[in-house]
Amino acid sequence: MASDIVIEPLTATAFATFGEVLEIAGSPSVTINRGKCHRYHDLATLDIHDGNAGISLFEGTAYNLPLTLDLVERHPLGSQAFLPMSNAPFLVIVAEDEAGKPVRPRAWLTNGWQGVNYYRGIWHGVLTPLQEPAVFSVVDRIGDGSNLEEFKLDPPYRVVDTNGLVSSMVSA
Amino acid sequence: MASDIVIEPLTATAFATFGEVLEIAGSPSVTINRGKCHRYHDLATLDIHDGNAGISLFEGTAYNLPLTLDLVERHPLGSQAFLPMSNAPFLVIVAEDEAGKPVRPRAWLTNGWQGVNYYRGIWHGVLTPLQEPAVFSVVDRIGDGSNLEEFKLDPPYRVVDTNGLVSSMVSA
Repeated sequence: MASDIVIEPLTATAFATFGEVLEIAGSPSVTINRGKCHRYHDLATLDIHDGNAGISLFEGTAYNLPLTLDLVERHPLGSQAFLPMSNAPFLVIVAEDEAGKPVRPRAWLTNGWQGVNYYRGIWHGVLTPLQEPAVFSVVDRIGDGSNLEEFKLDPPYRVVDTNGLVSSMVSA
Repeated sequence: MASDIVIEPLTATAFATFGEVLEIAGSPSVTINRGKCHRYHDLATLDIHDGNAGISLFEGTAYNLPLTLDLVERHPLGSQAFLPMSNAPFLVIVAEDEAGKPVRPRAWLTNGWQGVNYYRGIWHGVLTPLQEPAVFSVVDRIGDGSNLEEFKLDPPYRVVDTNGLVSSMVSA
């Protein structure tokens, strides 16, 4: 029987081991354009080896809950940032590493205005939008060579909305 | 009397001299995640001198039309990309350069799912959202030194929605 992962609200503190939450929080770094624009400066650690950072767009298919989590992946050569283009909440799934294996997976729900930047080498689930259209700005490594390591979870986990977080925020 | 700039729909072709339109167009570069995600790969030329590319968030105030355009700016040390987080159309204003002065300004309206990447050194208007909340993912140069050149337009221009493009797309 699959173990359950209960979805929690994403916070920068909870996520700190795995990466950065990219969001408007606290005071702006600087206000520009005659007071009309607040800049929150340099929020992500772009940790790119043997290549360059670049911007791509991802267009995803929405997932339904409960979700079977049977695969995670990691990128040994670079961090990877996802920022929604449609202020829609999405799932952020990560796992700790123990001797090269993903353990203790967790799942968070963004609030719609949050992006994330996975640190280089962090085990994470694939992009998991919950509604469509699901278009994301992605800033990650552009370069040759193998930057993808996958790990099958056997038995799989089951990601559940026991606390009703998703059903209260996402209009399918 | 101010000259009028009539807002046009943004297209990659029209914008090509000034930068790149970051959008889902054509066939995906690759499809990943068991067919659930299309990747449109490496859409922006990150042209960063004397610093590094980084991710910031901008939170802007909406502008009303007609808009008085009395200032443009350019960044001599780096390209600058804007991607909306709320699939809302915004204005993209640029000008050509003639002997260090901005000339022949133009204004485009995005379709809500488009971002732009201004090439390094291109004269452009400040971030011009038309509705709120207006949060943008920005990928530009992070570094010390002066990377901002401003130019006052005297007399100013007036950006107008003569063809009704904005009023048909933007719900204020």
